[in-house]
Amino acid sequence: MPIRVTVWNEGRHEKKNATVAEIYPNGMHEAIASHLRKAGGLEIRTAVLDDAEHGLSEEVLSNTDVFTWWGHLAHKDVDDRIVDRVHERVLAGAGIVVLHSGHMSKIFRKLMGTTCNLKWREEKNEREILWVTRPGHRIVAGIDDFFILPREEMYGEFFDVPEPQCTFLISSFGGGEVFRSGCTWTRGAGKVVYFRPGHETFPTYHDKNVLRVIENAIRWAAPNEKLPSIAFGNRKLGWMDSK
Amino acid sequence: MPIRVTVWNEGRHEKKNATVAEIYPNGMHEAIASHLRKAGGLEIRTAVLDDAEHGLSEEVLSNTDVFTWWGHLAHKDVDDRIVDRVHERVLAGAGIVVLHSGHMSKIFRKLMGTTCNLKWREEKNEREILWVTRPGHRIVAGIDDFFILPREEMYGEFFDVPEPQCTFLISSFGGGEVFRSGCTWTRGAGKVVYFRPGHETFPTYHDKNVLRVIENAIRWAAPNEKLPSIAFGNRKLGWMDSK
Amino acid sequence: MPIRVTVWNEGRHEKKNATVAEIYPNGMHEAIASHLRKAGGLEIRTAVLDDAEHGLSEEVLSNTDVFTWWGHLAHKDVDDRIVDRVHERVLAGAGIVVLHSGHMSKIFRKLMGTTCNLKWREEKNEREILWVTRPGHRIVAGIDDFFILPREEMYGEFFDVPEPQCTFLISSFGGGEVFRSGCTWTRGAGKVVYFRPGHETFPTYHDKNVLRVIENAIRWAAPNEKLPSIAFGNRKLGWMDSK
Amino acid sequence: MPIRVTVWNEGRHEKKNATVAEIYPNGMHEAIASHLRKAGGLEIRTAVLDDAEHGLSEEVLSNTDVFTWWGHLAHKDVDDRIVDRVHERVLAGAGIVVLHSGHMSKIFRKLMGTTCNLKWREEKNEREILWVTRPGHRIVAGIDDFFILPREEMYGEFFDVPEPQCTFLISSFGGGEVFRSGCTWTRGAGKVVYFRPGHETFPTYHDKNVLRVIENAIRWAAPNEKLPSIAFGNRKLGWMDSK
Repeated sequence: MPIRVTVWNEGRHEKKNATVAEIYPNGMHEAIASHLRKAGGLEIRTAVLDDAEHGLSEEVLSNTDVFTWWGHLAHKDVDDRIVDRVHERVLAGAGIVVLHSGHMSKIFRKLMGTTCNLKWREEKNEREILWVTRPGHRIVAGIDDFFILPREEMYGEFFDVPEPQCTFLISSFGGGEVFRSGCTWTRGAGKVVYFRPGHETFPTYHDKNVLRVIENAIRWAAPNEKLPSIAFGNRKLGWMDSK
Repeated sequence: MPIRVTVWNEGRHEKKNATVAEIYPNGMHEAIASHLRKAGGLEIRTAVLDDAEHGLSEEVLSNTDVFTWWGHLAHKDVDDRIVDRVHERVLAGAGIVVLHSGHMSKIFRKLMGTTCNLKWREEKNEREILWVTRPGHRIVAGIDDFFILPREEMYGEFFDVPEPQCTFLISSFGGGEVFRSGCTWTRGAGKVVYFRPGHETFPTYHDKNVLRVIENAIRWAAPNEKLPSIAFGNRKLGWMDSK
Repeated sequence: MPIRVTVWNEGRHEKKNATVAEIYPNGMHEAIASHLRKAGGLEIRTAVLDDAEHGLSEEVLSNTDVFTWWGHLAHKDVDDRIVDRVHERVLAGAGIVVLHSGHMSKIFRKLMGTTCNLKWREEKNEREILWVTRPGHRIVAGIDDFFILPREEMYGEFFDVPEPQCTFLISSFGGGEVFRSGCTWTRGAGKVVYFRPGHETFPTYHDKNVLRVIENAIRWAAPNEKLPSIAFGNRKLGWMDSK
Repeated sequence: MPIRVTVWNEGRHEKKNATVAEIYPNGMHEAIASHLRKAGGLEIRTAVLDDAEHGLSEEVLSNTDVFTWWGHLAHKDVDDRIVDRVHERVLAGAGIVVLHSGHMSKIFRKLMGTTCNLKWREEKNEREILWVTRPGHRIVAGIDDFFILPREEMYGEFFDVPEPQCTFLISSFGGGEVFRSGCTWTRGAGKVVYFRPGHETFPTYHDKNVLRVIENAIRWAAPNEKLPSIAFGNRKLGWMDSK
């Protein structure tokens, strides 16, 4: 059975900013999605903020195994009811791969329980080096012990997230800052990944290592074939014996 | 410097239910607070839901190092703005010790990012055995390798919380259920403890082991003398050199 | 590519004890292996203590992706050099699923860094109930929210292991004890699973839920197709630029 | 009650190397110990490899609450029986703060269960910046959101240790490498800290931030006043009722 992926993007920078539009003429979601469509075993759908229900109807959600999430300027425009809907779907077992400035999205903050804030800097030519801190992890399969992005936005610690269950990448930047760029957590029956790179004014989502990590993260975060039925509530003494 | 503790209680069962009122004539908060007042190095205040601002004004919060939190029927009556206020205070470095049915409180769910739901059963005579799963932890100082509560409500797994940073107690119940009864997490600069026992119709908050764990948990969750100043936001290249 | 599994067993109880021999006429390893052979995508080999090099030659190791390990009375008879060999293979990326009394094996203790000791009791008719504490985890795929083994040996907390990265099962026993029966850790590039049930005098390795968990654990612990090359040692300034 | 600290040092570089002897005329242990002696509530003892029993007799151990450990060239000269003795003491509840090249010591590797290996480079003028990744943690009390060491040896990822329970510091180096420089783990009833800085040819143990972190780490790793009695072994049905 293929993993059903919904690549979600705010999708507004690409319409407003000529630089971004030039790098991502069909949107960042399409750069990601077009890579994923060529990979085996994935069924790809895209959705953007300005779609009806942000492209995240109940029907889409019940047919999504893993979400990827990119947002930046318009986090507040995401409807709380739809955030709750995605939240429920993740707790029920879906995966979510939060990208770059998605760290301040409502859905990520709701899953983390913290501010998810950080330090940042935008420079034209700042180099990011991403170091693998958990070789052998599914998400870094095929990645060497580091990789370099010649130009990226800086994100620096303290990154206000709960202690990750696994930190698989740590970055350094030209200014001397560091950042936990690849992290995983479990929430309910679902898996959460944060992956840092992806500033809109750089061609990051055309980088083969970045695309590989996203693809791997999707495969890692995918639920089991059948979502678990999680039972809560009142139980009489001896209830187990009747099963 | 003493640790400044705010013992928070919903405080309604004690007014409505004769059994509860008999066990806790001054409220569960007073049973807990009166123990803590006799312990050294703690400065105790109590607050209940029906106080103005639930007893959790900005001024109270800025003078609170650790909260304890008991709620049950009226979680929804807690004002969202006050929940946000407590949440911010915890992320800034305060501790919070969530008790029993507080697992479904707005503040705990907001900190955890999950439903925090579970299985449960109320019986007149069900025994809970609490097993220490991290001897040497500050929170179980003075506790033997287990302790018994002759009558308690059952809480059973799956307990929908993020994987704890430390699980220090696991309970078994008469019906064969188990529960992670003592857990810790970090959120921002603050520490979160969940401690299970404390159903309102049993004299649990008069039990010396239970009181000891609560007292220990407060001491463990207390912040450093000075809260850290956490800096987020834009940083120019070379900003560190000017410090 | 199939996952190459080496099912390792001490294999002596089955020769010395008539009860055990009756339940497992071909050894516990064969009970496990015969289930795994019927599952898809696995390539199964067995090995026992009394084989040359305990059946764990360099060649076997370099063709093993995941080990399962059952030992009890003869932990001390396992050659330290072979323990070191398995240890290296796990750190390089292989998985290991340690079963029941394997908790005191040299390899498990070396991987954990602790005594791995516990409380125990052998009764003819003690019921174990295993509760799922991480629904959605690959290892409990297809398992309901609990399962029951009508007769098992009791293992009780404190179980002296490092805080697990994930606790997926917790057991309760007839005597009121509890135990973290399913746990995972990461060591180097490899994955470690502990799964409790399997006392030799009970038909535990004929139970479908137990076999399912073992099979799932193997799939979860399997390495990526290619083991990572992990580089340590001296690096000159600018070494990265030459890559 | 004061925390009883044993500051352990290999103590050979200081005798063989003029540069080291000039920076640390009484040994690195004395640089650390002299700071700790001025701090309140600590009782300080030092010990070096060439002392009888490496200065770690049974009597010293039973009067040590927290060890600090620096070693480098002579890890293999540390007697295995003494390593076992320290290991037991830590599992029983003592703390250990492993410093710099102590990452390859027998005791640290035994506690971790991994190779503890890493990348490294020695340059005359390489700057280390240490970033706080868990503000509010006891170990970084009084530390700003980063601090700088103008000259240090580089240590780079992958650092082969189990996923830390808490990562409180991450370093960046002039060459672009990163390293998890401050980490904690629990082993048995004891606490383990790794703190990176401290190459022998630089005056790192005269730096006030470094000394502060070491002092804080000792206070954090200190056991409860009374070590827990941890009970293992056979238990009859109903054993709890007789307590």
